[in-house]
Amino acid sequence: MPRYKLTVEYDGRPYVGWQRQKNGLSVQEVIETAAHKLCGERPTLFGAGRTDAGVHATGQVAHIDLPKDYGGETVRDALNAHMRDERVAIVEAEGVGADFDARFSARRRWYLYRIFNRRAPAAILNGQVWWVSRDLDIEAMHEAAQVLVGTHDFNTFRSTHCQAKNPIRTLEKLDVTKGPGDEVHIVAMAQSFLHNQIRSFAGTLKLVGEQRWTSADVRDALDARDRTACGPVAPPDGLYLTAVDYTGEPKRTLPPYDAASAPTDID
Amino acid sequence: MPRYKLTVEYDGRPYVGWQRQKNGLSVQEVIETAAHKLCGERPTLFGAGRTDAGVHATGQVAHIDLPKDYGGETVRDALNAHMRDERVAIVEAEGVGADFDARFSARRRWYLYRIFNRRAPAAILNGQVWWVSRDLDIEAMHEAAQVLVGTHDFNTFRSTHCQAKNPIRTLEKLDVTKGPGDEVHIVAMAQSFLHNQIRSFAGTLKLVGEQRWTSADVRDALDARDRTACGPVAPPDGLYLTAVDYTGEPKRTLPPYDAASAPTDID
Repeated sequence: MPRYKLTVEYDGRPYVGWQRQKNGLSVQEVIETAAHKLCGERPTLFGAGRTDAGVHATGQVAHIDLPKDYGGETVRDALNAHMRDERVAIVEAEGVGADFDARFSARRRWYLYRIFNRRAPAAILNGQVWWVSRDLDIEAMHEAAQVLVGTHDFNTFRSTHCQAKNPIRTLEKLDVTKGPGDEVHIVAMAQSFLHNQIRSFAGTLKLVGEQRWTSADVRDALDARDRTACGPVAPPDGLYLTAVDYTGEPKRTLPPYDAASAPTDID
Repeated sequence: MPRYKLTVEYDGRPYVGWQRQKNGLSVQEVIETAAHKLCGERPTLFGAGRTDAGVHATGQVAHIDLPKDYGGETVRDALNAHMRDERVAIVEAEGVGADFDARFSARRRWYLYRIFNRRAPAAILNGQVWWVSRDLDIEAMHEAAQVLVGTHDFNTFRSTHCQAKNPIRTLEKLDVTKGPGDEVHIVAMAQSFLHNQIRSFAGTLKLVGEQRWTSADVRDALDARDRTACGPVAPPDGLYLTAVDYTGEPKRTLPPYDAASAPTDID
């Protein structure tokens, strides 16, 4: 059966998350239903990142085995045609070898957390950013973020529901920068993350930005290896899975282009 | 009565447009209701641009007379607090003289039309951009747009419902540029516009971008002064009122910052 690598964009709001669940519609189910309409069979979709309810993606990657060799463009266009009423789009589909596994071959996962930092709420970007009204000190946030980079036991920064047996992860990048307009961007990159890890980082770094926490407080929280030492978990609204890198692909050094919040020459 | 100048951002989707109407909720009514909750009276709001249903704004300007001198920050924060469940935000409020009239003192209105130009539909930006799947020739669009710049009878490019007696307008700027990611941006600036004028421009320039029309066709359409010569009117989804300039303010030469689609250093 020909295998396809899909690059997927979605608005997380209408869905219970990436993964199939009994309590509502998931992104996985939306795409699997479209694939069923395309091929008549019931293929299973495997995603690189199991994003939570309300979390978005501009560069989720998944693989699926289809019974026929339709060609990438046909797969992309046919799936999109069957998802017309959904907030899910296949940005790209390409044939790959049977050894490609979207989840287990992933070498680096890139996430973006968008904070909307101004006094007035976000009328247009509501649900697509986290609105923080107090003025954030971006430099202090970035400095504190560097405490978290490296190989650590991240037990403080994961959900109590996290199912990973091992809380040790290697965080390769955690950059806090001024984004477009009133946005503050947190870019996180690692081979894999724990459940709620980036939202826990974002909630904690916000405390630093508001000058309620220092870098030393972040270090103490990390060292505590205790969930209760974490700042509040940031809402899903601002979180985007923006890219997944695989073995054999050229190494990405800059964060990927993000369709939801991208560069322009207007200022 | 102290007069306030309000800079207003809104998502046009849930509303019947800027102006009060009997058939549904308008942005004007939302803000007037919030002002009533603030001051107990029923002040009227006057806006610079009467945007249609589904059209957005990041820099609409309005004025309102309030019975007390609350101060700009209080007006902004109180109105926002009373509009918590709406997709409308007061970005700025400042006290102005009684001679300031948001509509009649306006010297330049800036609009942005956002086209989302890629094969796959817009999962996240759905409703905030116009999705065009065929590859657009941006240079050809910009060149054709220059045919429209200047003082002309724009009868071809206005709604049959347009109430302006005089179809002559002076279009000061109509630039088509590559926007962020897969976006194509049309920036339009004039003292005033006719009803549906920019959406008529966008629909016509799209035909040029698809190489179905030439600059000469656009000139013929303009010269026809006939509504039926116009290309299809583009949907409201991609249209944003981004700024209004007033007499005595420094002259703006670049398009204003647009909160919905703004610059970043990420690529």
